[in-house]
Amino acid sequence: MTWRATVLTLFPDMFPGPLGFSLAGRGLATGLWSLEARDIRDAATDRHRSVDDTPAGGGPGMVLRADVLARAIDAVPDLEGRPRLVMSPRGRPLTQARVAELAAGPGPLIVCGRFEGIDQRVIDARQLEEVSIGDYVLSGGEIAALTLIDACVRLLPGVMGKLESSTDESFSAGLLEYPQYTRPQLFEGLPIPEILLSGDHAKVAAWRRAEAEQLTQTRRPDLLAASRHPVCQKPPKNATDG
Amino acid sequence: MTWRATVLTLFPDMFPGPLGFSLAGRGLATGLWSLEARDIRDAATDRHRSVDDTPAGGGPGMVLRADVLARAIDAVPDLEGRPRLVMSPRGRPLTQARVAELAAGPGPLIVCGRFEGIDQRVIDARQLEEVSIGDYVLSGGEIAALTLIDACVRLLPGVMGKLESSTDESFSAGLLEYPQYTRPQLFEGLPIPEILLSGDHAKVAAWRRAEAEQLTQTRRPDLLAASRHPVCQKPPKNATDG
Repeated sequence: MTWRATVLTLFPDMFPGPLGFSLAGRGLATGLWSLEARDIRDAATDRHRSVDDTPAGGGPGMVLRADVLARAIDAVPDLEGRPRLVMSPRGRPLTQARVAELAAGPGPLIVCGRFEGIDQRVIDARQLEEVSIGDYVLSGGEIAALTLIDACVRLLPGVMGKLESSTDESFSAGLLEYPQYTRPQLFEGLPIPEILLSGDHAKVAAWRRAEAEQLTQTRRPDLLAASRHPVCQKPPKNATDG
Repeated sequence: MTWRATVLTLFPDMFPGPLGFSLAGRGLATGLWSLEARDIRDAATDRHRSVDDTPAGGGPGMVLRADVLARAIDAVPDLEGRPRLVMSPRGRPLTQARVAELAAGPGPLIVCGRFEGIDQRVIDARQLEEVSIGDYVLSGGEIAALTLIDACVRLLPGVMGKLESSTDESFSAGLLEYPQYTRPQLFEGLPIPEILLSGDHAKVAAWRRAEAEQLTQTRRPDLLAASRHPVCQKPPKNATDG
């Protein structure tokens, strides 16, 4: 069974968008994975095709209705056994470990919110898992869904082909990736670090490991902190999974 | 001067992509902001238009060349005074506070990496600021750039119009947003919490605040941890900026 993403959105034409290009796009065209974007508005029942209403208790914006979204979810065939996600800054932060889990499964249903949010009752009743791609606010869940799908798709067998290099990349060992260099040997007076040209594989590996550790210590001590400061309540998942 | 994003990419046709829809798309069409996607390949000089080469020191994948990318950056007019970003999982995690800063400025140059990475020397020599949208790996910087631009654009004057509601949303007070509800009053036997229908604004506000605190405590104690556990080396920026 091919890995597939089913997206519920008010803007189905945003898909596949950037996922239609490059390696993800080639994999989509050749059937290595599949994508279906379904319009939430098709589940509306009134003649205005309303999907939202004002927040109970007041406040700005509009809230996506529980009944309409529930109907849209229930209309998706073969949902059994697939993760049901909703993209939201309130969700659990997405990690590379969770991406790998999702890529190894059948492929998720992804609900994209717009407006002020989604009625909490449909999140509860349909057991949607809230997922956040980062600590910032987007105009809707669509670009977050594209992000999550891209992260998953590149891990699917055959999509990256020979370019696959997941063992050395950021987060693979709980560390950020070491710096990279390529020709020309001299760029504006700056040489490639000599050790990388030495041909000594063990020394190169040791240098890269040291650079990765140094960079992580400087930029993301939180990735290293889990083992050092157990008092921190929520270590990033990467740090323990790597 | 209109806020503008200049993107350097190997896939200029990925833009504006999802940013051409909804409120961001309307703002783009009416000139509230602008977007230019420039092809890095235009800065190649050989007849194969090469932009990458194998990593010095060995390893999988290909590395974007320093000289080609430097030429592409230097060809961008009016770069003076604008932030120069490169999307990378090695970067500083994007926060809503940084988004607000970027939205208040003239608009960034954003370099999108592909392949294994970018030659470190061009990052250093052109003083590129590495920015990460989250702790996962994408197939390239393009979707990360779309994410960053979307987060900025919705904060620009006029883009959100009356839908603007940034004071109550997630991270605005260092907290995740409280749950939302709307009609119908009863959904599959689940009522809207009574207090939200009381008309008592003070009680509604207190309930929402308590819900937001409870949710943040449960899901993202790291957002609250800064003040409690100073031993944690790097509290999320949101927690202190909120």
